[in-house]
Amino acid sequence: MEKKVKGKLMIIGGAEDKKGECIILKKLFELAGGQDANIVIMTVASEYPEKIGDEYTQIFKRFGAGSINAIHIRSRQDANHSGLVEQIEKASCIFFTGGDQLRITSLLGGTQAEEMLGKAYSRGIVIAGTSAGASVMSETMITSGNDDDAPKKCTLKMAPGLGLLKDVVIDQHFAQRGRIGRLLTAIAQNPHMLGLGIDEDTAVIIDSDAVFEIIGSHAVTIIDGKNLDFTNVSELKPDEILSITNVNMHVLSSGYAFDINLRKPLIGR
Amino acid sequence: MEKKVKGKLMIIGGAEDKKGECIILKKLFELAGGQDANIVIMTVASEYPEKIGDEYTQIFKRFGAGSINAIHIRSRQDANHSGLVEQIEKASCIFFTGGDQLRITSLLGGTQAEEMLGKAYSRGIVIAGTSAGASVMSETMITSGNDDDAPKKCTLKMAPGLGLLKDVVIDQHFAQRGRIGRLLTAIAQNPHMLGLGIDEDTAVIIDSDAVFEIIGSHAVTIIDGKNLDFTNVSELKPDEILSITNVNMHVLSSGYAFDINLRKPLIGR
Repeated sequence: MEKKVKGKLMIIGGAEDKKGECIILKKLFELAGGQDANIVIMTVASEYPEKIGDEYTQIFKRFGAGSINAIHIRSRQDANHSGLVEQIEKASCIFFTGGDQLRITSLLGGTQAEEMLGKAYSRGIVIAGTSAGASVMSETMITSGNDDDAPKKCTLKMAPGLGLLKDVVIDQHFAQRGRIGRLLTAIAQNPHMLGLGIDEDTAVIIDSDAVFEIIGSHAVTIIDGKNLDFTNVSELKPDEILSITNVNMHVLSSGYAFDINLRKPLIGR
Repeated sequence: MEKKVKGKLMIIGGAEDKKGECIILKKLFELAGGQDANIVIMTVASEYPEKIGDEYTQIFKRFGAGSINAIHIRSRQDANHSGLVEQIEKASCIFFTGGDQLRITSLLGGTQAEEMLGKAYSRGIVIAGTSAGASVMSETMITSGNDDDAPKKCTLKMAPGLGLLKDVVIDQHFAQRGRIGRLLTAIAQNPHMLGLGIDEDTAVIIDSDAVFEIIGSHAVTIIDGKNLDFTNVSELKPDEILSITNVNMHVLSSGYAFDINLRKPLIGR
């Protein structure tokens, strides 16, 4: 038996509303404790950490969060710095901004900051991420692949993620960038994994039972290859197109939920 | 606490001796129970399953194994077949041949055969693999990358593996094909992972405490990026060369051992 994790994940498909109703970010503020929230904004994925850190700080300040700290990790030394590790320890919410998911894993992987992140998550905080910060949640993450293209093995690239969410591969900006081909390829490679394609301004909130609910203005596409009959993914030559049969797919919008362990949508619960 | 796994893994870097002393395959035969062994040869990775299945069957027969079955999985239906699942249940050793690691995961991932494999491993059998069958043991595996080349992100491809070995990325035919560049790139992407580069005719035997010993005629290279100071892996453009500093590397030969959890070679134990 794995030790029961008490934390929640909020995984956002990028480009969440920052000026209007801010449904997603306001929900994150509430999950983090509202006025009592201690929010750490992790800008490590971004090339413009100050700019993006300031932007989110202003938003959470407007909502009324008690404590907001934007942390800019630029080196592995930073990620082993005791002051920074303490800030993670005290946080009620850690929010990974967009940018490049390989910046997150190559700078945090194996550091004390990552270790503390895992502990804080087990203990019960909220860990959130948008765009690159979304992809990085799983054990194996997509780092690049073609948009608006048929599934092709040769263009999909994956790497080890932070591993906070088991048995899932995440993609973001999903419908907006035509990414079903690359997520199908990922799932064909190992149908043990469930594919989650999260649209822009849309998020899943995952509880400790691996059940998630969806919020935001678009949809989440779930690709389940467990009953896959056939794929030629292992035989493909570069530039050949993937064949794959009997994929189970769900598209769910705000208010619906899904059980990752049962691989089942929860409708009308 | 994760449930304690009782099984052993034997991970072979490909091209193991099949005609001379057969140190590696004879050791596998002994670990599997010697004359009482019930060995299942899994040819799923190979395009020539009968040929490779016959070859290994003859070898284990020559050693005197009690029961040897070559199983040729050609479809996901095969991998959900109850007769086949039963054969896995009864085995004392499951041996994955070489071929293409994506054939293994795309045909087995999420099937009943895979589920039974995990159960049998937890219960205490030996799971072995050579070449593609070696790569597939980890959570995230290398599926392709340049040989004899400087580390480049653009040419490395990874995918979800069978996940029997945690916190490690494996490469095989390691010195013989000049693969340190691609393993360094994998580790730079997430230094949480330990890189194991296993040479041809060389194997690691991993016990339930995540300690492994090495046998065979060449060496195992261990790449530990935990104390990595810097890598530009996330900024690289295609075809640019990876920079990476302060990698901890070990090269160990037959008779030495290594503790994966402590990330320490065990010399003279």
